[in-house]
Amino acid sequence: MSDRVTAVLTDVLDGRWAHIRQAVRERLGAEFVTVPGETGDQARERISRLIRELPADVGVAAAFPSRYGGSDDPGGSTVAAEMLGQVDLSLMVKAGVQWGLFGGAVVALGTERHHEAYLRDILTADLMGCFAMTETGHGSDVQQLRTTCTYDPASQSFDLHTPHEAARKDYIGNAARDGRMAVVFAQLVTGGKSYGVHAWLVPIRDEHGNPMPGVTLGDAGAKAGLLGVDNGRISFDHVVVPRDMLLDRYGQVAADGTYTSSIENDTRRFFTMLGTLVRGRVTVGAAASAATRSALTIAVRYGETRRQFTSPGADREIVLNDYLAHQRKLLPALARSYAYAFAQEELAVTMAEIFALDEPDEHRQRELESRAAGLKAMQTWHATRTIQMCREACGGAGYLAENRIAGLKADTDVFTTFEGDNTVLLQLVAKGLLTGYRDAFGSLDGWGRATFVAEQVREMVLERTAARSLIHRLVDAVSGRDEEVAVTDRGWHLAAFEDREKHILEGAIRRLRNGAETKKDRPFEIFNDVQDHVLAAATAHIERITLEAFVAGIERADDPAARELLSKVCDLYALTTIEADKAWFLEHGRLTPARSKTITAVINDLLRELRPHMRALVDAFAVPDEWLNAAILREEPARQEAMAKQDDALRAAQLT
Amino acid sequence: MSDRVTAVLTDVLDGRWAHIRQAVRERLGAEFVTVPGETGDQARERISRLIRELPADVGVAAAFPSRYGGSDDPGGSTVAAEMLGQVDLSLMVKAGVQWGLFGGAVVALGTERHHEAYLRDILTADLMGCFAMTETGHGSDVQQLRTTCTYDPASQSFDLHTPHEAARKDYIGNAARDGRMAVVFAQLVTGGKSYGVHAWLVPIRDEHGNPMPGVTLGDAGAKAGLLGVDNGRISFDHVVVPRDMLLDRYGQVAADGTYTSSIENDTRRFFTMLGTLVRGRVTVGAAASAATRSALTIAVRYGETRRQFTSPGADREIVLNDYLAHQRKLLPALARSYAYAFAQEELAVTMAEIFALDEPDEHRQRELESRAAGLKAMQTWHATRTIQMCREACGGAGYLAENRIAGLKADTDVFTTFEGDNTVLLQLVAKGLLTGYRDAFGSLDGWGRATFVAEQVREMVLERTAARSLIHRLVDAVSGRDEEVAVTDRGWHLAAFEDREKHILEGAIRRLRNGAETKKDRPFEIFNDVQDHVLAAATAHIERITLEAFVAGIERADDPAARELLSKVCDLYALTTIEADKAWFLEHGRLTPARSKTITAVINDLLRELRPHMRALVDAFAVPDEWLNAAILREEPARQEAMAKQDDALRAAQLT
Repeated sequence: MSDRVTAVLTDVLDGRWAHIRQAVRERLGAEFVTVPGETGDQARERISRLIRELPADVGVAAAFPSRYGGSDDPGGSTVAAEMLGQVDLSLMVKAGVQWGLFGGAVVALGTERHHEAYLRDILTADLMGCFAMTETGHGSDVQQLRTTCTYDPASQSFDLHTPHEAARKDYIGNAARDGRMAVVFAQLVTGGKSYGVHAWLVPIRDEHGNPMPGVTLGDAGAKAGLLGVDNGRISFDHVVVPRDMLLDRYGQVAADGTYTSSIENDTRRFFTMLGTLVRGRVTVGAAASAATRSALTIAVRYGETRRQFTSPGADREIVLNDYLAHQRKLLPALARSYAYAFAQEELAVTMAEIFALDEPDEHRQRELESRAAGLKAMQTWHATRTIQMCREACGGAGYLAENRIAGLKADTDVFTTFEGDNTVLLQLVAKGLLTGYRDAFGSLDGWGRATFVAEQVREMVLERTAARSLIHRLVDAVSGRDEEVAVTDRGWHLAAFEDREKHILEGAIRRLRNGAETKKDRPFEIFNDVQDHVLAAATAHIERITLEAFVAGIERADDPAARELLSKVCDLYALTTIEADKAWFLEHGRLTPARSKTITAVINDLLRELRPHMRALVDAFAVPDEWLNAAILREEPARQEAMAKQDDALRAAQLT
Repeated sequence: MSDRVTAVLTDVLDGRWAHIRQAVRERLGAEFVTVPGETGDQARERISRLIRELPADVGVAAAFPSRYGGSDDPGGSTVAAEMLGQVDLSLMVKAGVQWGLFGGAVVALGTERHHEAYLRDILTADLMGCFAMTETGHGSDVQQLRTTCTYDPASQSFDLHTPHEAARKDYIGNAARDGRMAVVFAQLVTGGKSYGVHAWLVPIRDEHGNPMPGVTLGDAGAKAGLLGVDNGRISFDHVVVPRDMLLDRYGQVAADGTYTSSIENDTRRFFTMLGTLVRGRVTVGAAASAATRSALTIAVRYGETRRQFTSPGADREIVLNDYLAHQRKLLPALARSYAYAFAQEELAVTMAEIFALDEPDEHRQRELESRAAGLKAMQTWHATRTIQMCREACGGAGYLAENRIAGLKADTDVFTTFEGDNTVLLQLVAKGLLTGYRDAFGSLDGWGRATFVAEQVREMVLERTAARSLIHRLVDAVSGRDEEVAVTDRGWHLAAFEDREKHILEGAIRRLRNGAETKKDRPFEIFNDVQDHVLAAATAHIERITLEAFVAGIERADDPAARELLSKVCDLYALTTIEADKAWFLEHGRLTPARSKTITAVINDLLRELRPHMRALVDAFAVPDEWLNAAILREEPARQEAMAKQDDALRAAQLT
């Protein structure tokens, strides 16, 4: 593999925001990188300092309006945050809290007076803030938050109150130490009526760092990871909040207490408000994948050097990456990481396009939210599994802080449940897919014959296709019976993924419809009994759009050797995804037993073919050595040399 | 579920060493339990203190000969260590290093003069020691250790030397702080010839804690978990070791340098020596499962209290454990934990029996080592997956140290690679299965026709069957074609597991034999090309003996209701194991597509049936509340009450 091919791969992976990725790589040196073995206090101290030393031009606040120092580039800001995920995940989360969640909420939910008053200081981190949404009692279902904020026309102010412990704000970044203000989410009550969850800007600490009157601040204490983030708890005891501190872009309260909003339905308004915050999920998925690429780089490079066990007739012990079992662990995860890199890039591009629209497009906005949720769930689970696997692939060395993987694992672990629990997010994806049908058919009861449903499903699925014409061409090129098509045929992969999604979704719909008829008195069971089925539909959906993004991404490589290599990696992603679910394909007559076995054999062939390119494939991730900061990468080559010398000396002694 | 049934389950799970389990539960109070959020120094300090405060009668040194203060009860000692895994895993590992590895090596590899001189002080922890086997360059393949220990007849002493950094002892418990001696493993050289790896007792620190001359001690530094264990590094610069410090039970060096041993072959001798240390693997698997039971107890009890999302028409939000997706996460893992509890008990009983034999039984010893390796691998992976899942099932709360699961995860993580890398261990299991054939057939080349092989396979597999007559009866009772047998038929489960193991093993043998013919010049590839297949055989083998142990364990419950419940849990273990590999059953014509789908449906039915018993099933683990030490278990019930009151008040206000 030539350096040129690696460079082409890096270009393709870096994508539209290559300039931001490159800027972060160049500007953030060793002084920004995770320090292994710090105490919690040391980590918080360091991160609090570094957050203010981040160079402005690396893009962390790129999403801010340019008039306040940003560059109106939300896509760029998620990419910058993603890159921080390879530098230090506490720094990434702290930046995400400050500029993404806190600053982002002021931008998206506030109006000009809030922007004018606070955005400049937020951008410079002179005003550190919190995003106080989650409560101890409600994280996934934030519509049910129990904090209340009640308007009093007499004083022209709100009364912000935490009625009991379950309503305290919990896990809040910047709350335990650095935050001076918070965007607080609470149930808006005015004129004796509740209008659902809204957000207010509330000072929580004075200039000396002491809690404001009525505000109780606590520390969430030690955590599994992210030691540098000061997560805390906030309670409000009838805190007075001036009327103009309501972030009132989507809902306004007049001086007399009259409530107005351009969106009449409380639920719809709330989800519209939440929708503007989609960037958080886009960022978390991206950062999880970035950290995964770091872990894979360490494990693959270590596996390329480290040797263990001898083989008859061989002079030296066997390199770990030569073992089939090691390839079976690392390479499919590597292929999936490539797939997600392309899917994530497509997601960021889509987000940038939608944010740039003059007129909001609700359909595309909803699709964006669904994909952001789904890709966040899939990427963070992939991170958790893969970093754990990399830890094990490095043996005991993987458990030591000095080799970095332990920290990557501990820090990313929470991503599977924060910014939305993954299972809940996949349910959201499924709901989006089902809602498509509801829109088309009016309601569950009104659906027509099953065959009619089937046709519609095909249409809905296809509508969601990215790189549509290319995908169509490839699928249409698949001719003959399945059995006759090579299992490495791209069109067959695409057709198989699409067919699986469609069929699982149809099955779920059928079962939901049956349930709606037979379980009229048990509404919870109608949905709960098919929850696993519905989650499978969501997974199949995200895996399909991920494959399509990969296929589209290959086309961006302008070098035949790079394209060929990417194509093999894509084969591996497609086939290991099918293999993982091959029982489904067998159960539904999509694979014969013989063809199913062939897939496993072809995967093993692919592993052999990709073996020589493992190093190049991780080098293409272009993670700077000083970011990897792993002792085993620095030290192991010399050890292997010493052992080879020892072996040679022993052999020479035996020969003489 | 009555308390009586729970008590019966606890009895059955507690098994032969119930008295030790009960003693640990009663004797180790809150002062021994993990402290969340400690720094590394604080944790080491605390654990170093507690290791000396452990009451002697809780059994941690039960394996020691009674004349030195033990009770000749190796099974009891693994159970005591297992129980420590629920108290504090650092304490468990520290105890394992002191009494299991270090003390155990002196007992097993030393002779009377070593026992007389050191065992009493080792038992009281007045002499703290290390088990210095692993080197930076060799962990899995310890036969290739690079430390040398060369005998010099002139001085009648050994020269212990670390030739280069790859040969330094690494990850060694007790090395960074507390250890005063070490059992050091090195290549024994005498008369210019190497006799393979042996062990010596070597002082590493003087009474002031300073390194002995020629000994360099280092700290392995911060780790992902097990903060209370002082893992370190040891190097030797031509350290003089007196001749009588060789632990010489299996190999002796006379004053003139003559080497003698009752076992001629170096490799066989080495593995015999290693075999005496099997207790380490038995303990690690057990402790991993004990920690898993703690995590499941926390997640299930939290899921029983915590509510999230409303359902139409319901007064309160839905309890997490009512969601099918939540049951799908927790219950199969719970069923597998029951299965491993029975398999582990059987393993400990077998070990106790073999250790008690007057005449060593090499066949049974090898089977014990194989099962210990396999169950260690399967239980530690189960722990890693399940504790992670429990972490996520508790949402953000699972990430906080105060809720304990984060610590359980971090501490047990290393178990998948220590005391043997899991993949290497499964390979060992597979090798044992294949070696059975080699013994029967002479050599790979000498194998007869495939049909003959098949008959032999059946015999070999059956020979390994536990609770043989019961299993036979159940399997024989399966009549008619597979399609006609209920998927909950126990005989069918047993037959399916056995058939799968046999078939996978036969396939691997066939492929190895083909490879031996066609790849004569590429010996590494013969094995490597079927590595995944061979590992699958090992997994199927362990899953089969685990099922058989579960089936035998059910019989021990002397209460019909308890037996019925256990039987359902066993159904769930058997069916989810089949479901996870159902592609194999479909590919090989063992399941029709229709029957395969039925399995998934029946699993969902089982989840519904077991739902009301979730709490009882974890209560039967009998983990004391103060050991669980999870804030969410203490606090969440009151929060739910407060929210229910708030809801009631709101409803009342609306009604009036």
